[in-house]
Amino acid sequence: MDAAPPLAFALDELRAYLAEIFPRAWSAGAHEIEAIGPLAARVRLNFHADHLRPGGTVSGPAMFALADIALYVAILAQIGRAPLAVTTNLSINFLRKPAPGDLVAEARLMKLGKRLAVGEVAIRPADSAELVAHAVGTYSLPAAR
Amino acid sequence: MDAAPPLAFALDELRAYLAEIFPRAWSAGAHEIEAIGPLAARVRLNFHADHLRPGGTVSGPAMFALADIALYVAILAQIGRAPLAVTTNLSINFLRKPAPGDLVAEARLMKLGKRLAVGEVAIRPADSAELVAHAVGTYSLPAAR
Amino acid sequence: MDAAPPLAFALDELRAYLAEIFPRAWSAGAHEIEAIGPLAARVRLNFHADHLRPGGTVSGPAMFALADIALYVAILAQIGRAPLAVTTNLSINFLRKPAPGDLVAEARLMKLGKRLAVGEVAIRPADSAELVAHAVGTYSLPAAR
Amino acid sequence: MDAAPPLAFALDELRAYLAEIFPRAWSAGAHEIEAIGPLAARVRLNFHADHLRPGGTVSGPAMFALADIALYVAILAQIGRAPLAVTTNLSINFLRKPAPGDLVAEARLMKLGKRLAVGEVAIRPADSAELVAHAVGTYSLPAAR
Repeated sequence: MDAAPPLAFALDELRAYLAEIFPRAWSAGAHEIEAIGPLAARVRLNFHADHLRPGGTVSGPAMFALADIALYVAILAQIGRAPLAVTTNLSINFLRKPAPGDLVAEARLMKLGKRLAVGEVAIRPADSAELVAHAVGTYSLPAAR
Repeated sequence: MDAAPPLAFALDELRAYLAEIFPRAWSAGAHEIEAIGPLAARVRLNFHADHLRPGGTVSGPAMFALADIALYVAILAQIGRAPLAVTTNLSINFLRKPAPGDLVAEARLMKLGKRLAVGEVAIRPADSAELVAHAVGTYSLPAAR
Repeated sequence: MDAAPPLAFALDELRAYLAEIFPRAWSAGAHEIEAIGPLAARVRLNFHADHLRPGGTVSGPAMFALADIALYVAILAQIGRAPLAVTTNLSINFLRKPAPGDLVAEARLMKLGKRLAVGEVAIRPADSAELVAHAVGTYSLPAAR
Repeated sequence: MDAAPPLAFALDELRAYLAEIFPRAWSAGAHEIEAIGPLAARVRLNFHADHLRPGGTVSGPAMFALADIALYVAILAQIGRAPLAVTTNLSINFLRKPAPGDLVAEARLMKLGKRLAVGEVAIRPADSAELVAHAVGTYSLPAAR
């Protein structure tokens, strides 16, 4: 894959940056960055009844948001302070209904170009190896970095 | 397109059914079904600060949820009481940043088969004709109807 | 939608340009540009036994190529001589099996930005209004135009 | 992931079956099944000038066809003689322009349900580890197996 440039943030710095630019979303504590690495990130969704849909499963929008955040975190970890990186497309497949509980998203960038980044995300229950959803997303990167 | 069977619900009946199966989500009042028709539905997202992301634009997950709901409503309007219709794939393109304000999603089913339904959704600000997002979704339908 | 700039080509000029840059593909005569308009194009696939798959239906790759070409034609019609516009993503839904015969693709651009274009394509048999496939594609546009 | 059932074919049997149901396509020799395994398949595209597009790169439709074939082969390897498995959606991201030369597609099924299979495919040059395209596909499976 791409030879990844060195990470632009240490894990704690990235957490602080996200709390700074998304104060409302990150202070709620729903999402937690577990790890960042070369072209990769792992983000956990802490389960909360608000994420449920009928039948007791985690809702599609909650999994969409988790996938989007995990990819965004993997991109920021590489390119640094760039609040203007924006999602242009995200395609998500829902594979199985997750039981109520925490979910873990593993994001991996397949391309980190000058203008576009493309990555995939696998979402699993925190206590299982079985995929519940898989997404692929494209992000438009700011021109000047 | 498909010769659509007659609608399974009147608009008020469908609203009542959704409030019954998604009590939490629909009682919040964020989404409002404006119209249903043959293979089609129009759903409004009533703007709320919770839907914002930095820069003052409506968030991606809020638009994803709106697209998913609009397609689900269009399907239920045709097939009737079927809480087990589930999203298998949803691909969304974010085209422009919406200004803060209500959004309207127009869903149109392109296929309503025995096992799968496929539809597209165009999302616009309530006061503009310009698309801000477009999605295509696939739904698995319950076997016995 | 976007206020489309005037077209960069007359229909005959665009046909000549495509034959010039894709001599092999366009001289084969499989695809024919029927019309171009503001942010739109209509392209026909002239049926040939090579496009068949078992069961007598037109193959998926033949429909993918038709969708990609129709979107590319709609983009070139707006932006002019730009052989370096490239497909970055194409997502296609196969809705019904087409009978053997010509297919018509109607492409419509939903966004024509400085760096990205996004459009959708509806594919129908030449003699029917019923969709057989629907695609959404994203194209990266050359920086200097 | 899924505990995969045992394979339904040996590699040679699957090759023979594909030549039987797609005589035209497989006798051309463009595609070669290199390996099948639990929920997985590897298929090679033998380079030919017909796959080129301007600039000397392998065409998008040639990569789409390769992705579709690799997923189809991974499904058939599990479920056996089922010519009626059909692609319902395929979304492909083109990541880099491949140089002229053979391509290898590695398909991996993420879900093999009763009615739907979902898988992803990574496409690389035969002589490189760098992805040139990545696709995710959904297949509708025949009811009676």
